[in-house]
Amino acid sequence: MPKRSGRPFGYTVRREEKMPEQKFVNSVNVTQLFSTIDLIKQKPDVAQFKFRATNKWVNGTHNKATIKDFYGAGQEDNSRIAMLFELDEPPVLCGRNLGANPVEYLLVAPSGCLTTSLIAHAAARGIEIKGLQSRYEGNLDLQGFLGLSETVPVGYQGIRVYFTIDADIPDEQKEELVRMAQKYSSVFNTITKSAPVSVSLGR
Amino acid sequence: MPKRSGRPFGYTVRREEKMPEQKFVNSVNVTQLFSTIDLIKQKPDVAQFKFRATNKWVNGTHNKATIKDFYGAGQEDNSRIAMLFELDEPPVLCGRNLGANPVEYLLVAPSGCLTTSLIAHAAARGIEIKGLQSRYEGNLDLQGFLGLSETVPVGYQGIRVYFTIDADIPDEQKEELVRMAQKYSSVFNTITKSAPVSVSLGR
Repeated sequence: MPKRSGRPFGYTVRREEKMPEQKFVNSVNVTQLFSTIDLIKQKPDVAQFKFRATNKWVNGTHNKATIKDFYGAGQEDNSRIAMLFELDEPPVLCGRNLGANPVEYLLVAPSGCLTTSLIAHAAARGIEIKGLQSRYEGNLDLQGFLGLSETVPVGYQGIRVYFTIDADIPDEQKEELVRMAQKYSSVFNTITKSAPVSVSLGR
Repeated sequence: MPKRSGRPFGYTVRREEKMPEQKFVNSVNVTQLFSTIDLIKQKPDVAQFKFRATNKWVNGTHNKATIKDFYGAGQEDNSRIAMLFELDEPPVLCGRNLGANPVEYLLVAPSGCLTTSLIAHAAARGIEIKGLQSRYEGNLDLQGFLGLSETVPVGYQGIRVYFTIDADIPDEQKEELVRMAQKYSSVFNTITKSAPVSVSLGR
């Protein structure tokens, strides 16, 4: 019987083989980011993702959305605990404030996406960010929703975003990061360039 | 000194004067809905709303958004308790599953808006809805976000929505409700028709 090494089942050796030194910038695993990029260059199918939500009406303007599974990197991921989101309107819009309203969720989405896009692209360039905050304001004219005008847009007329970046870099580099954040944000591009949405009725 | 009526401070009378009988359909206060429409017809400025969010980066792909105040019906509303939303990515996208990701929030938003739009317009027509559910799936090709292709859209390539309506109405009327939901949904119209988003850097 061969003598066992001090490493039970050779765990440490295998771990070292599988996990080369990981480089983190802004707590983003840049090693994983670049190996993902390399993988997708070889196998573009790995880049195909499908994200999903379900919604159940409760009553009035109150409904609940759930996020759980998604498809990505060639497989279904059903490992997450279901995440529930309450949606409602304030009393002035016939609701009871049981959750943020849908157009407010439409600000939460770009806030997360522009932030992550900025951080990830800064990390890829080795730029350390100490703090990052942003605020969002969108204008809506209810005449659209209520069908009182054919010329007023039903959706947001415009959304303004203001970023504050704490980092030891020149202002020009901060401006460049804000441009990168927009260029590569999936949500920003969906809203500013539009996306087709097909709605159909199940039986 | 005049004799006091049985109604302390005349509360009941005043209440009746201010609050005519309220009609509810699908738990939507249709009386309030129609009086809002009448008010906006006379004073279109009442229809101007501004919704807001703030976002604070935590680390890596993890950030937090907050919804609280808004402007609408001619005044600031700061009465709500702040609502916090966690955003993160799954491990395959360099995150730790500490929240739904931004493109998933971009499905939560239309889910709430199409639902409320359908319910409100059904209520306005006196159509009772017993149950309403919907599901959402959006396709995303990560080559856009990663800058690996100039031709692949960075945003959603398309979103599909499937509604199930439980109501004692013919299928044609259900189809009509699904069309109305789209026509008057603020989020649906923002995504399908686009909205300008300006992003700037604070000092």
